[in-house]
Amino acid sequence: MNTWGNKIKISIFGESHGTALGVVLDGIPSGLSLDMDFIRREMLRRAPGQNALSTPRKESDEVEILSGVMNGITTGTPICGIIRNTNTKSKDYDKSLLRPSHADFTGFQKYGSFHDFRGGGHFSGRITAPLVFAGAIAKQLLKENGITIGSHIKQIYDVKEASFMDCDLSKDFLEKISAKSFPVISDDAGEKMQQTILDAAADKDSVGGIIECAVLGIKPGIGSPFFASLESTISSMMFSIPAVKGVEFGSGFDFAEMKGSIANDPFETNGKTVFTTTNNNGGINGGITNGMPVLFSVAIKPTPSIAKMQKTVDLEKMENTTIQINGRHDPCIVQRAAVVVECSAALAILDIIL
Amino acid sequence: MNTWGNKIKISIFGESHGTALGVVLDGIPSGLSLDMDFIRREMLRRAPGQNALSTPRKESDEVEILSGVMNGITTGTPICGIIRNTNTKSKDYDKSLLRPSHADFTGFQKYGSFHDFRGGGHFSGRITAPLVFAGAIAKQLLKENGITIGSHIKQIYDVKEASFMDCDLSKDFLEKISAKSFPVISDDAGEKMQQTILDAAADKDSVGGIIECAVLGIKPGIGSPFFASLESTISSMMFSIPAVKGVEFGSGFDFAEMKGSIANDPFETNGKTVFTTTNNNGGINGGITNGMPVLFSVAIKPTPSIAKMQKTVDLEKMENTTIQINGRHDPCIVQRAAVVVECSAALAILDIIL
Amino acid sequence: MNTWGNKIKISIFGESHGTALGVVLDGIPSGLSLDMDFIRREMLRRAPGQNALSTPRKESDEVEILSGVMNGITTGTPICGIIRNTNTKSKDYDKSLLRPSHADFTGFQKYGSFHDFRGGGHFSGRITAPLVFAGAIAKQLLKENGITIGSHIKQIYDVKEASFMDCDLSKDFLEKISAKSFPVISDDAGEKMQQTILDAAADKDSVGGIIECAVLGIKPGIGSPFFASLESTISSMMFSIPAVKGVEFGSGFDFAEMKGSIANDPFETNGKTVFTTTNNNGGINGGITNGMPVLFSVAIKPTPSIAKMQKTVDLEKMENTTIQINGRHDPCIVQRAAVVVECSAALAILDIIL
Amino acid sequence: MNTWGNKIKISIFGESHGTALGVVLDGIPSGLSLDMDFIRREMLRRAPGQNALSTPRKESDEVEILSGVMNGITTGTPICGIIRNTNTKSKDYDKSLLRPSHADFTGFQKYGSFHDFRGGGHFSGRITAPLVFAGAIAKQLLKENGITIGSHIKQIYDVKEASFMDCDLSKDFLEKISAKSFPVISDDAGEKMQQTILDAAADKDSVGGIIECAVLGIKPGIGSPFFASLESTISSMMFSIPAVKGVEFGSGFDFAEMKGSIANDPFETNGKTVFTTTNNNGGINGGITNGMPVLFSVAIKPTPSIAKMQKTVDLEKMENTTIQINGRHDPCIVQRAAVVVECSAALAILDIIL
Repeated sequence: MNTWGNKIKISIFGESHGTALGVVLDGIPSGLSLDMDFIRREMLRRAPGQNALSTPRKESDEVEILSGVMNGITTGTPICGIIRNTNTKSKDYDKSLLRPSHADFTGFQKYGSFHDFRGGGHFSGRITAPLVFAGAIAKQLLKENGITIGSHIKQIYDVKEASFMDCDLSKDFLEKISAKSFPVISDDAGEKMQQTILDAAADKDSVGGIIECAVLGIKPGIGSPFFASLESTISSMMFSIPAVKGVEFGSGFDFAEMKGSIANDPFETNGKTVFTTTNNNGGINGGITNGMPVLFSVAIKPTPSIAKMQKTVDLEKMENTTIQINGRHDPCIVQRAAVVVECSAALAILDIIL
Repeated sequence: MNTWGNKIKISIFGESHGTALGVVLDGIPSGLSLDMDFIRREMLRRAPGQNALSTPRKESDEVEILSGVMNGITTGTPICGIIRNTNTKSKDYDKSLLRPSHADFTGFQKYGSFHDFRGGGHFSGRITAPLVFAGAIAKQLLKENGITIGSHIKQIYDVKEASFMDCDLSKDFLEKISAKSFPVISDDAGEKMQQTILDAAADKDSVGGIIECAVLGIKPGIGSPFFASLESTISSMMFSIPAVKGVEFGSGFDFAEMKGSIANDPFETNGKTVFTTTNNNGGINGGITNGMPVLFSVAIKPTPSIAKMQKTVDLEKMENTTIQINGRHDPCIVQRAAVVVECSAALAILDIIL
Repeated sequence: MNTWGNKIKISIFGESHGTALGVVLDGIPSGLSLDMDFIRREMLRRAPGQNALSTPRKESDEVEILSGVMNGITTGTPICGIIRNTNTKSKDYDKSLLRPSHADFTGFQKYGSFHDFRGGGHFSGRITAPLVFAGAIAKQLLKENGITIGSHIKQIYDVKEASFMDCDLSKDFLEKISAKSFPVISDDAGEKMQQTILDAAADKDSVGGIIECAVLGIKPGIGSPFFASLESTISSMMFSIPAVKGVEFGSGFDFAEMKGSIANDPFETNGKTVFTTTNNNGGINGGITNGMPVLFSVAIKPTPSIAKMQKTVDLEKMENTTIQINGRHDPCIVQRAAVVVECSAALAILDIIL
Repeated sequence: MNTWGNKIKISIFGESHGTALGVVLDGIPSGLSLDMDFIRREMLRRAPGQNALSTPRKESDEVEILSGVMNGITTGTPICGIIRNTNTKSKDYDKSLLRPSHADFTGFQKYGSFHDFRGGGHFSGRITAPLVFAGAIAKQLLKENGITIGSHIKQIYDVKEASFMDCDLSKDFLEKISAKSFPVISDDAGEKMQQTILDAAADKDSVGGIIECAVLGIKPGIGSPFFASLESTISSMMFSIPAVKGVEFGSGFDFAEMKGSIANDPFETNGKTVFTTTNNNGGINGGITNGMPVLFSVAIKPTPSIAKMQKTVDLEKMENTTIQINGRHDPCIVQRAAVVVECSAALAILDIIL
């Protein structure tokens, strides 16, 4: 089901080569004056074709708002935004040749021969465009309520940089990173990451990476134990993003190699508020915010569309064969995924705090 | 909210020191003859006090079934099982002294002074007992439909063992591991892990670890793109388990260090079926099963209850102070969490395939 | 599925002749000091065996609270209340003899031979006891927030009385009616209704009726257009009550015989607030409260358990036959259903306003 | 929230005078070849301006399908259909003058001054156009699975005709009635109803009515006790339709005046199947289908937009005043509502049986 949320409801629809894709976002209060410049900037961060790191194929990501907004201000009713597909020549796609690690095979298993396989159909990463549109609205609403969401690329292949856990996080700090075309804490690390991506591209290959996301300004006491834990809600949204294969909060998998005496975040007070002196728990105890920054990381797998020769199956002939995928694809989608992670997180956080 | 599921509905309730805890499980078809021996064995795998690795304090985990079962057979209506609390002396608990990395502070923020803080209240790991009861029923139902779920401890502190990805997975293989009191692939590694736990205990400390879980026998084509992806559904359930701070599918965070040419799982056919020769995607493409084993790992943080002196805050006095938590707690909950992960996974898988 | 609600979650479970029945109520804020006297009174209004109009068979409706309450005060976590069944001799029930207008046949169709047919099993009106327990808590919480819910018996067979629409509704007025053992506006009408019930009983028959319910003190602007209209939410809850076969708001089916010029509720202002001078719309326009009393009526069908000889089928032999149902059943459940309607309405309203 | 359904998900969006309205329908299986002629015919039944009974203002109800359909066949992914608004001059609307029994006041209460009041905004009956589009797809899918849905106008003002309960219901019978421009069993009654509507129009007034709907071919054993009863699901959908103020199943409110010996539907068998010889329960016992036709009626209130002078309030001035609403509105929407009821019922039934 392509509907998500409790207090907000998000429905996404569309296929890579269909007529249009879009989103219905319900639950946004009336009276929000949409910052269309901000929304367009966020969508541009996701759009391909912006630089040498990404596919040169430009997509038209212009959103048409059909409902829920009057004179630029939300009316409180469902907001529908659509993006028309253009230049959707489908002749390149061979239905029976399974692209490894794509959803061609599983789509066929689920939908049968009626599956719209063209360009990945409904599984296409392009469907994240309306998600960013909706999430940008959520992000703006959160910002007006004192909550800032930012991310950086923590790792590309073998190049890593520091964690937000080791930074002095502030609204300005996060916004400064988000404004970078390649969002990293250390520009040196960023240079190396970009070179790694270009090297992979030159080798007709692709690389994966890790995005770390921070949510600042969220009050303590938000969330629930068990099924509606902050971790459950955020992760269910994160794993909705194509290519995300891992989600961890705070120290996450590093907890495995920790002792309790190191892992526990000591409480401290200045007489007015209570905080922790470390943030291994990523701002969440028992599924509920403790007032520290909410921190989580997501693992992004390498783009499966690579120009290298790969073994695969011709489903029609049921024969083993090989495939080489048109090399115009991104060698690394981590850069573009950062804004998808931020905007999806905004939707998840909004659903929790409303 | 403590209700989960679409096709099944699970509601859990109870506090560590309240009258009883339990679960309502709705959506189990009529006609399932409950294997109470199996259910009790699963619950015993979770129960504390079974060996030197765990707290000596025995809990009575005897479940009373109140509804939905007649003559040992499910009737198709909601099944309620409860576990009464006994020996719930609460005098040890000091409400105002925040235990680091516990939910004392966040519970107070959410529920105010009415929060049942005793023994962790509703946040207690003890609430996983009814979850295992419900999950064991789901596991039995899945087994009768050809689906086997098993897990092993992949890592304790600095001791690691092989991944299921490198094993020849079979129903028998998984059941053999589950039957071990310390579920590992390699008993040598298991010995070292246990010694690591005992060492941590001797040092008044605790250690974390990683559990890897496998689901065999699930057909291709199950799941959905985006919000109801298999990853979203399973992770939302996994992050409901207290102490879980990371979830990854297949190669998960290792994808970050992979190239596409290595990460992609090549398709192959024997003329009858299609399979992949590697399983980095953990049996899932585009949120949908591809017929390979579904593989995922969860990171378990070290038990926060340690006997070492820790810094904390006295919330009533708003003063910095220290705390030493009664040393009878498990030095490592990973062993006991394995069955919780398996049973929770069974509930998630059942919700998807029904 | 036996789970209901968005902002609250209610799960009910149990069979008429099983071990126990109960409810899990999640979403009640912490800090509500439960008025157990009030809750018991509400449950007594529903309990059979209270007077000549009802079956002499007394049921033990004593609720045991298992969770979510500490020292009589809600903790904010799920509240589970259970009622144990006693005296559940099942020998009277012949599984294959279908009771007309009961759920014997449909239960068999849905659950097969594993259906717990004893005493109506999960379909028994007895399952409304935990619903009243949960609803009484909701009612108390609403009362503390200025919202009063009351009902009266508007019709029994051919005896009718005035509508709430023609009364000067106030908190006191509603509470005075609720306090009556036979809740009517006019005691004269009430006398005739009771005589009608006794006459039906003497004739081994039963009668139906209509309950009208009012909700006072609910602010304007609550609810939503379309799918989450106040009418949708309340009706989905009302039709959960066994024996309810009709729900109407305000003038309801009488609208069919009205002209717009009469049906429309004119707005009027005293300079401070806006109100309507009639309330044909039952306080709801466009699915949203307008500040007038919310009014709705539910039709209750006659108890199907009657001592008169009836035609039916022996399902095992697949033969036409007759049945006579033990005459100890209520000749009219409308009186007892009033509190079920009120308490269910309280749950629905709470779900909307939280 | 404008999202409905469990197994299917329907999201509707749009305002009467906004850019476009539409619907996202998720859960339709792949492989359904859409019968666009049928869908257009159903939409035409709803469209205004078709005859003298309705407003002369023609609306363009042409649907553009944006997703989920390839070469006219459903792909299994969400179907989005939109209808663009044209001729949406808004100058006629005075924001502060409350139209009685419309949602102007409640919309203002809920959404504040940002409410899109133009033409009823999101509350407009026009929003039922996409609902009919979605429901027509559901209806086609049900038809291909042997389930037929039809309706007739049982009452307009004081003109009544027979109930479906007294007819020999068949697929052909229902389809014959649906094909009529004024869907009634008896054309004599239909003539009188239409004259009643024209008389009301001539008097600058409007009239209400009752639509009765039948669902044939639905197997026994479908539905659930309590919260997911067939009655709950259908009614929650029916009360989503603007102007519906009452819903009853089978004999509904007439049960109030019945004795059990008459109300109970006797079971009978021909040796092969079990059926009932009357259908007072409208094909539903205990919330579950019994194999008889599912019957329900909905009360439609008179169109509130009438040209007669009415008392109301000027919200800006907070003064009592009068209003006369442009007389081009339908004097009776019951005729057009019949297809909305049928299509909405199709969506509800589909959600239950999938």
